[in-house]
Amino acid sequence: MKSRVQSIFQRVPADVDRILLQNSVAEHKDMSFFHATDLVQGGGFERSAALLHRDGRLDLLVPALEETSAKRAKEANLSTYQKADERKAWIVDACKGAAKVGVNPPETVASDYLALQELLPQTQLVDVSQPLADARAIKDKVELARIRRAAKIVSEVSDAIPGMLREGLKEFELSAEIGYAMTKRGATGPSFDTIVGFKEGSGEPHYAPKDVPLRKGEFVLCDFGAWFERYASDLTSTWMFGKPTKEMEDIWDTVKRAQDAAFAAIRPGAKGADVHNAAAAVIDASPWKGRFIHSVGHSLGLAVHDGPALSPRMDWTLAEGHVVTIEPGIYVPGIGGVRIEDDVVVTKDGYEKLTTARRDVRIVS
Amino acid sequence: MKSRVQSIFQRVPADVDRILLQNSVAEHKDMSFFHATDLVQGGGFERSAALLHRDGRLDLLVPALEETSAKRAKEANLSTYQKADERKAWIVDACKGAAKVGVNPPETVASDYLALQELLPQTQLVDVSQPLADARAIKDKVELARIRRAAKIVSEVSDAIPGMLREGLKEFELSAEIGYAMTKRGATGPSFDTIVGFKEGSGEPHYAPKDVPLRKGEFVLCDFGAWFERYASDLTSTWMFGKPTKEMEDIWDTVKRAQDAAFAAIRPGAKGADVHNAAAAVIDASPWKGRFIHSVGHSLGLAVHDGPALSPRMDWTLAEGHVVTIEPGIYVPGIGGVRIEDDVVVTKDGYEKLTTARRDVRIVS
Repeated sequence: MKSRVQSIFQRVPADVDRILLQNSVAEHKDMSFFHATDLVQGGGFERSAALLHRDGRLDLLVPALEETSAKRAKEANLSTYQKADERKAWIVDACKGAAKVGVNPPETVASDYLALQELLPQTQLVDVSQPLADARAIKDKVELARIRRAAKIVSEVSDAIPGMLREGLKEFELSAEIGYAMTKRGATGPSFDTIVGFKEGSGEPHYAPKDVPLRKGEFVLCDFGAWFERYASDLTSTWMFGKPTKEMEDIWDTVKRAQDAAFAAIRPGAKGADVHNAAAAVIDASPWKGRFIHSVGHSLGLAVHDGPALSPRMDWTLAEGHVVTIEPGIYVPGIGGVRIEDDVVVTKDGYEKLTTARRDVRIVS
Repeated sequence: MKSRVQSIFQRVPADVDRILLQNSVAEHKDMSFFHATDLVQGGGFERSAALLHRDGRLDLLVPALEETSAKRAKEANLSTYQKADERKAWIVDACKGAAKVGVNPPETVASDYLALQELLPQTQLVDVSQPLADARAIKDKVELARIRRAAKIVSEVSDAIPGMLREGLKEFELSAEIGYAMTKRGATGPSFDTIVGFKEGSGEPHYAPKDVPLRKGEFVLCDFGAWFERYASDLTSTWMFGKPTKEMEDIWDTVKRAQDAAFAAIRPGAKGADVHNAAAAVIDASPWKGRFIHSVGHSLGLAVHDGPALSPRMDWTLAEGHVVTIEPGIYVPGIGGVRIEDDVVVTKDGYEKLTTARRDVRIVS
């Protein structure tokens, strides 16, 4: 995508005219490869590489096996290879004559980085990870449409969950229903392993669903996301099944008030930490002080955690086009946990919610 | 897991007594972290680290948020942190006094590797990726039981697919059914985005399912896998829906014969390339010569592509305990593609199939 490549180079020092992005195998891929090429419909692109030029041109190298998938990048100058030596030769040729080549160390495996140093002894590798991340953080219309679609999917699924709940339902069964409902609505797949936790399980933020049956008087926490054309959504809804205790209701209401406070703090120019602190202040003023043990949200895009978190320990500023999650939570041993999470895009004046799940249904009996 | 850590160090040069494994964010994690810690039930473990000692001890650092999840590593000496500086201090302390520290460059992001060089100017970082990979390749009983469970799930789902097929069914709908059936049987999630391709789609090896309806006389190719406690299975089944042409039947039968030839070549001591070549010889002797455009299989474990491929271009030798896929395919423009894939473990005398999907049902009408 010429426009995305150019938008990246606007942020890159003027003496760097080429950027090399390399994917390794399995999950060790550079999401900036997908951002720059827009290859988001099919193709694994292991051991693939992209060379970005300042004038917007894009050279692409993929295994021969994925030629068909790679042809979707219509503007790219496509090469294929079969042997590792051909891949090396392409890289050497791609970087030939450049005193400096931009690279992305946070998403390149160290072995590829070290091999590149050896292949290009005359070339200085320049860390352009910040420009790449900054360009990726501001979503364009095409990207936003994909996240919107992924967000619509999880919102509809969230609204359907109360109808799925019954006594004896097991955590992994509900996880199966959620995954099915997402894919049925067009998700490429779940953007992470679905979390479904009842009672104790709801109290562990990154819990994996088990063979645990639902009983009356328990929390039902569901945290799930959809991929749509390689872009992610991420949503958490928590319900009280059967008659809750007063404490459970108060935990739920406090989390919702914390989320609303965080929403109110979102605007271009706001610090990530300020958004966190707005939510934390609500919880700190409640009986549940000390039970909010993570940051209030994170950037979202080509990865579920894609860019900085809305954390008291990170110094960054929100801008129009940033997409973040807002997900305060309270976790109390012996009672369980509540987390409520929505996805928002920062707009000129404030924010727009991309997820639209109902928040007025708290109790399901 | 003391035994796994010790098995790793048996392969590591005697002057390296510590290995540091570091996870970055999102998907950029070191699967050897999960192999060594056996933390396979819950927990994301971003920005976590493990220090392995030659005597089998294991020190573990995780974000405070994941303390509950990390406590499952009962033998580990667990620390938690909240600030990036605390993480750095732990790493410096972990490596203090060591002239050499083992690292895993193929699964460490370059930025973490470069930061480590800076933090430890007196310490030589030794690439122990091969010992880590070799130890991981030989599955122990606990690991094999997980892969067996993941393989059972996909086998049962494969056998159920013919009952799901009907004219007009869309690719993404079938993908949803497959994902549901896997999770319902206890899978943590799909181990990769499910591939469902009809007609033209079946001819693209890494196709993403679309809004394409099933018609009579088409191939139905389904490639899917399950995670079970972080271990993967991977299976492909292809059917002919409605009355096939003679060519379609011949493609299917040729792929099956190629798979059988590959199976027959599996034993400890066999080269990966030999297994590939056994399958390739069958296809090369058929009218479909030139239409088998990938390697016949890959190693499988904590990642779907976890270790070397069964490729004519890789020099490695199978040993007892290795788990690999066997998946020849033929792809013909205008007709479509057939791939048949099973997972096997190499045994003392040959191999055992871990997937048990029926291969006698070829045509579904």
